[in-house]
Amino acid sequence: MIRSCISALLFIVCLHAESADRIWTARYVVTMDAQHRLIENGAVAVRGANIVAVGPRAEIEAKFQAAERLDRPDAILMPGLINTHTHAAMSLLRGIADDRTLQDWLEHYIFPAEKKNVTPEFVFEGTRLACLEMMLSGTTTFTDMYYFEDRVAEAAKEAGLRGVVGDTVIAFPSPDAKTPDDALAWTEQFLQRYRNDPLIVPAVAVHSPYLASAETLRKARALANQYGAPMLIHVSETKKENEDSEKAHGMSPARYLDSLGFLNGRTVAAHGVWLSDSDIQLFHDHSVGVAHCPGSNMKLASGVAPITKMIAAGVAVGLGTDGPAGSNNDFDLMRDMYLAAVVQKVFTGNPQVLPAMQAVELATMGSARVLGMQDTIGSLEPGKRADMIVLRLDRPHAVPMYDVYSQIVYALTGSDVEDVMVNGRTIVRDGVSTTLDAARVMSIARAYQSRISSSLSTR
Amino acid sequence: MIRSCISALLFIVCLHAESADRIWTARYVVTMDAQHRLIENGAVAVRGANIVAVGPRAEIEAKFQAAERLDRPDAILMPGLINTHTHAAMSLLRGIADDRTLQDWLEHYIFPAEKKNVTPEFVFEGTRLACLEMMLSGTTTFTDMYYFEDRVAEAAKEAGLRGVVGDTVIAFPSPDAKTPDDALAWTEQFLQRYRNDPLIVPAVAVHSPYLASAETLRKARALANQYGAPMLIHVSETKKENEDSEKAHGMSPARYLDSLGFLNGRTVAAHGVWLSDSDIQLFHDHSVGVAHCPGSNMKLASGVAPITKMIAAGVAVGLGTDGPAGSNNDFDLMRDMYLAAVVQKVFTGNPQVLPAMQAVELATMGSARVLGMQDTIGSLEPGKRADMIVLRLDRPHAVPMYDVYSQIVYALTGSDVEDVMVNGRTIVRDGVSTTLDAARVMSIARAYQSRISSSLSTR
Repeated sequence: MIRSCISALLFIVCLHAESADRIWTARYVVTMDAQHRLIENGAVAVRGANIVAVGPRAEIEAKFQAAERLDRPDAILMPGLINTHTHAAMSLLRGIADDRTLQDWLEHYIFPAEKKNVTPEFVFEGTRLACLEMMLSGTTTFTDMYYFEDRVAEAAKEAGLRGVVGDTVIAFPSPDAKTPDDALAWTEQFLQRYRNDPLIVPAVAVHSPYLASAETLRKARALANQYGAPMLIHVSETKKENEDSEKAHGMSPARYLDSLGFLNGRTVAAHGVWLSDSDIQLFHDHSVGVAHCPGSNMKLASGVAPITKMIAAGVAVGLGTDGPAGSNNDFDLMRDMYLAAVVQKVFTGNPQVLPAMQAVELATMGSARVLGMQDTIGSLEPGKRADMIVLRLDRPHAVPMYDVYSQIVYALTGSDVEDVMVNGRTIVRDGVSTTLDAARVMSIARAYQSRISSSLSTR
Repeated sequence: MIRSCISALLFIVCLHAESADRIWTARYVVTMDAQHRLIENGAVAVRGANIVAVGPRAEIEAKFQAAERLDRPDAILMPGLINTHTHAAMSLLRGIADDRTLQDWLEHYIFPAEKKNVTPEFVFEGTRLACLEMMLSGTTTFTDMYYFEDRVAEAAKEAGLRGVVGDTVIAFPSPDAKTPDDALAWTEQFLQRYRNDPLIVPAVAVHSPYLASAETLRKARALANQYGAPMLIHVSETKKENEDSEKAHGMSPARYLDSLGFLNGRTVAAHGVWLSDSDIQLFHDHSVGVAHCPGSNMKLASGVAPITKMIAAGVAVGLGTDGPAGSNNDFDLMRDMYLAAVVQKVFTGNPQVLPAMQAVELATMGSARVLGMQDTIGSLEPGKRADMIVLRLDRPHAVPMYDVYSQIVYALTGSDVEDVMVNGRTIVRDGVSTTLDAARVMSIARAYQSRISSSLSTR
């Protein structure tokens, strides 16, 4: 009698269970939602590309039946990391010329190497390598400005990564455009082609206020606003850039951009190392987001961006690795999350600034806000895209654990990433990419290395 | 006829081949010797605890026959990393209280947690966990100052790590000594017990000039010199320490120590963040080495040690992680090597300072010099102890590679360590410890975590 009652109950429960495509469970679910909910023994249910439920494991299991499950009883499940500034294809130039001044590096290594080597194929293969590295270290969305960005979009889609992608408009002839106008015309076609893509957000990208004319800056902004596309640009990366801007325009780079109406629309400003208090206020008033790249800014000795002030002023701040050829040398956003926290502490002289949870926020919701994508990515919440990662806790450096956020920021690294889902699709499982053939991607990269090395030695 | 000639030749070669216990070969052998020899397709031959030859693989193979070999055709073989300052057992308190002021952290978390929990067993198990983490991330020698250091020595020997180990002499009652004199008496016995150990270098450790009386400092120095032991001490870690010293003694901590004769003998000064130019000169004149701990100094907002100046002045500078409970949170010396390079660049405003090779030098020969062990460890040279590590190059973030040193410092991490040998013994193979049972060590650490958490919540 009891048995048949239970059977009947189970039958009713099953009848009422909603279906999901995938359920991932973990010891800790870090949601990064507005309440910063941390769920012990939690689960996330996914249907199609979207999260349909986040909660205690028992609750989710009672409510959903899933075709596929992944249980990680000794791990953290959290939103995927969002890289707001990089030049992915430069992976093929990783470490080609380190420990040099920016000028020496650009003029004697990067520009010659790019001039001789950057082709559509170079960009595709370099971005593939970068995507592989990014997914293996927990990045689910990256923001790219380089050349031949249609090939970047293609590589991202093959990898299964989300990409915010813009072709660099720059004052001199580039590998893929003779003039800024050519680049803008190309960009318009690109915006049309990718406007409804599930993974690619096409963007307009202008190199910087100093490598684009006022006319180009105005046209680029008009184009971006016409398509509702984000604008990517480097702003106030070095002290010299600010000094030059004062000489040329009598104002800071930020203020100069504003004087052209360039800040009237969604803008992702990379670096912002030398923003003044008044520039920060300007960014706040125009909802300009800042892509903070601590690793790059330290290695190139650009300075330390005052992000504590920016956050206090209400400016959206996210994280970027910058390119891997001299600025950073890898795409591990976990390292930049760590660096953001510790460099801000030593720079301000206060160990309490940028505590661990805020550093995690930078790499997730902060970055989503910078890109204007806070409604679709950056946290684990029903209705958002299913972009999430699993971090292992079964290695010695992850034991013991007194605080989940501290562990993520100060002890774990990109190599602790075990599984990755983007847009509802599993792209990393057990630390292995399910979308890219790692051995093949690395072997192609090595072939490029030989070719690039000889091109440099014969210059 | 030809065949028998070859056989005869091989026989002669074999007759002339010297025997070795182990030969390790790799795509690149980074020697860190005085010429900074980098050998492509190189090998190291080991007999007993010592390196007997380093050279091109073909040469070593022609000259030596080995019972055991390890071939790593896609890896770097380099000297083991040397940690010149840590508190290993604090691994059990990893991240127990982050993002706090030093005072709050010490008074409300560390001291109460230590008072209730630090026993000989705690120290043994905590050091075991630390040793596991250190070996897996490429450290072969660590320098420890904590309590119950006989248990630290025991754990290090079980793990197979080399340890420079000193029991902390401190002004107030500590977990293992009621008075500084008790601690010194204990230390003398410890110095006698371990004076001829192949792995343990017993040291004298005094907490700092501000937590030891002038009398204790003098006695400690006399004891160290009597046994030819290194002296471990924290010096000029924070600005407040320097200000307090000026108030109390009318001079800097370094100058105060000198006024007591404390610097007359081998000394490892941890941190040195606030050393003045004249302090640096003083350290040079007395051959005091500095254990630079960039991760700790950044996280605790202590400041950035002027190591570029120290190196220019001829002071020996090495690297330390510091303890993992708030200062750093892990033992990955690869991270501190990276941090040392990039924080020095941004701090001096010059991207050319502390180039990659010099950063590798800090973690190897520099650290060996700091410990006064430059004749036995720190480089791969015949006659030195066989302490060496293998770094994998077969992961996406290690491809392509244009410069070995750049790759080590800016792209690789502790998780790329594949094999580790200390004193001629293989202690890590394929990323797995051969001396410690990782699952058991972590399970014990988790049990401590529960106990410590409850002890804190009921304080």
